[in-house]
This record gives sequence, structure tokens and C-alpha cells, in this order.
Amino acid sequence: MKLYSFFNSSTSFRVRIALALKGLPYDYAGVNLRGGEQGKDAYRALSPAGIVPVLVDGDVTLTQSLAIIDYLDQRYPAPRLVPEDALARARALEIAQTIACEIHPINNIRVLKYLTGKLDVSEADKAAWYQHWVDEGLGAVESLLAKLPASAYCVGDAPTLADCCLVPQVANALRMGCDLSRFARVRAVYEHCMAQPAFIQAAPQNQPDYVA
Amino acid sequence: MKLYSFFNSSTSFRVRIALALKGLPYDYAGVNLRGGEQGKDAYRALSPAGIVPVLVDGDVTLTQSLAIIDYLDQRYPAPRLVPEDALARARALEIAQTIACEIHPINNIRVLKYLTGKLDVSEADKAAWYQHWVDEGLGAVESLLAKLPASAYCVGDAPTLADCCLVPQVANALRMGCDLSRFARVRAVYEHCMAQPAFIQAAPQNQPDYVA
Repeated sequence: MKLYSFFNSSTSFRVRIALALKGLPYDYAGVNLRGGEQGKDAYRALSPAGIVPVLVDGDVTLTQSLAIIDYLDQRYPAPRLVPEDALARARALEIAQTIACEIHPINNIRVLKYLTGKLDVSEADKAAWYQHWVDEGLGAVESLLAKLPASAYCVGDAPTLADCCLVPQVANALRMGCDLSRFARVRAVYEHCMAQPAFIQAAPQNQPDYVA
Repeated sequence: MKLYSFFNSSTSFRVRIALALKGLPYDYAGVNLRGGEQGKDAYRALSPAGIVPVLVDGDVTLTQSLAIIDYLDQRYPAPRLVPEDALARARALEIAQTIACEIHPINNIRVLKYLTGKLDVSEADKAAWYQHWVDEGLGAVESLLAKLPASAYCVGDAPTLADCCLVPQVANALRMGCDLSRFARVRAVYEHCMAQPAFIQAAPQNQPDYVA
């Protein structure tokens, strides 16, 4: 398998966590988002939206991190990241989709570039925008977690798709200097996960294309 | 079952299509997004993010349209909307996630309100923003569809999760006056679906809370 990834991309980080949890080896292809590599024709042939990550597994070329993790779960089921139990599954997907739809896309680098470029938004207003969507989104995740039994992970006693999404989103928010003090349970899951080998292996600073 | 929905919400429309395709009866609870009902405490208790739709099925209260459709598919499997075949499943999820993550959140009403309110963006710049993300996102969907065998639906010869996402997004884009002339295959799927009874039943103008 081959993964097209950017070290600081949180959607790439999601898939790297899934691959590490499953113990699957893969070739790492760094895509330099800062250099605009994702917009070039050769890359658009793999990823029509010009985004990371892309997984290539034999004949299959697949985009969209959550579709990739579901595919990995079907093809390499141990350990399961999308729970089989109907309710656990619904909760894991609910949290994953809240992060993937309510936070990440709005704070994505290409959206921030549109704000500061075409709309001439100031750096201070950009930072407020970022914090606003983190507050809204992680606030919702915190409330969803509060309805579930206490656990070191989001749902149940093992990592799921929800943790694959939560950890990179929190890492991004911390890197951007966001205040996460309101989100105790979110932070506790993040800290527990980031002490586990698979999450450490998948972290931005441990990727071949990492630049400090 | 009870569905909290707003007639013009494309994420609500997704779930209404799924319920109609499965022939499941439900109570319709209109949530007036224009009147700010989604931000009130009573509604936030159901939906921590203050968004539609919410499905209540017995003891289960669930947010996030794609999590809801997966839940319905687990609990009421006929007809399957998330394909069982691994590759068809991956393609359906890839298209659904492209729409759910690359288009909808960025053009969502609360984001547009932030632009025109807090950031004082003009109506013309807001319209250009909307068209930009529709172009990027539906352009990617068109390319993904072009890689698949010709069909009246997105993936295979029956409706899937991908069609549940594509149809409401195209309906939104048409309502906002976007130019979709580049997206022939996207438009063909939309037109085919919108001639089917389940899609018609789920359409905004056929909901109890519809206002012209």
C-alpha cells in the first residue's frame, strides 16, 4: 500500500493512525501542501479534489479519510475501528462526522487562504474564525462524550474511528494556540491516545516529510 | 421514529431520502432554522452542535446525517444504502464524504452568516465564495463519477448513500443560482433521482414546514 500524505494534514493523520493501529506497512509519499503540489495535474489524477490523503492499495485508489478508514476496516478487519455493535457504531460515526463536517472543513488551510487572500481578512479575524469553529465543534463533541460511559477512548474501551478523528483535530487546535480548557473529556482522550505507540507513530513529527 | 428537520436543510434532505427509500414511516418535527430554533437550550439537548437533522428511534437520539443513514442501514437494511461489496462501498462513501466534507460545511448557512455578519463580506463576495466551493467540490465528484461505469445513479444500478448526498447538494446549488453546466454526469444523476418517488417525497417543497 501507498499513502499520499502531508505530515501536518489532520486528515492524513487520521489515516496514519488507522494504519498504525492495524499494524499495516505502507510506502509514504509526502505531498507538499505548502509548495502547492496538491494542485498539480499529476496529483489531481489521483485526487480530483486536490487534497490529501490518498490511499493506493493494488488497483484501488481512494480519497477521503473516512472512506479510506472504512475500506481498511473492511479489508483488514483486525482491530475493528468502525464498531460492529449498532449503537457503538452509531456513536463512533456521530463523533467522527461531527469533527469531519463541523470543524475540519471550515478551518482547512484552503479555506483560511481564501479568507486572507480573496476576502482580505486580517490575521486576527482569521484566528477568531478558527477558534470559533473549534469552540462550536469540540463543544459538541464534549457534549456527545458526556452522554457516554467514562472511558479512556471516545467510545468503548478501545480506539475507534472517533479517536482517529479527535486526536488530529485536537493536535491542530493546540498548534494553532486554541483554548481547549472547556473540553476536559476531549483533552483526556487526546492525552491518553497520544501516549499509545500507534498514535505516536502516526504523529506529524514522526513522518518522513516533517519540517519543524 | 421522529425526525427533526428543516425543509431547506440539505443534511435533513439526505436523511429524508434514506427514510423514503426504505419506506420507513416517521413523525416530522420541523426546526425553524430561520427563526433560530436550533440554538435554543431545548434543541441543544437533542443536538449539541445545534444543527439538523436529529433522528430519535426509541431510546436512541442521533445526530449527523451520515451517521444516521448508516444507523438506519444497520437497523432497517432493506434496501441497503451503504453497499456491502467492498469496492462499491468505498466508492459510495468517497462520493458522500466529498460532498459532506468538501462542499456542504463551507457553504452552510451558519458559515455564510459569519462571513456577512462578523466579517462584513458583501453579498457578491458571498455568492462568489458559494460558487467557488460548489465548483471545487462538484468538480471532484464529476471526476470521481467519470471513473465509474455509466449508470443512472452514482454507484451501481440502485440508489446509495452517495445519491442521498448528491441530490440535496445539487438542489441547493440550483436554488443559489450556481452554474452547473460543467457537471454533466452530476446533473444526469440528479435529474434521474428527482424523477423517483422517494426523492420527490423527500424534497423540500413536500415537507410540512415548507415555506415558499
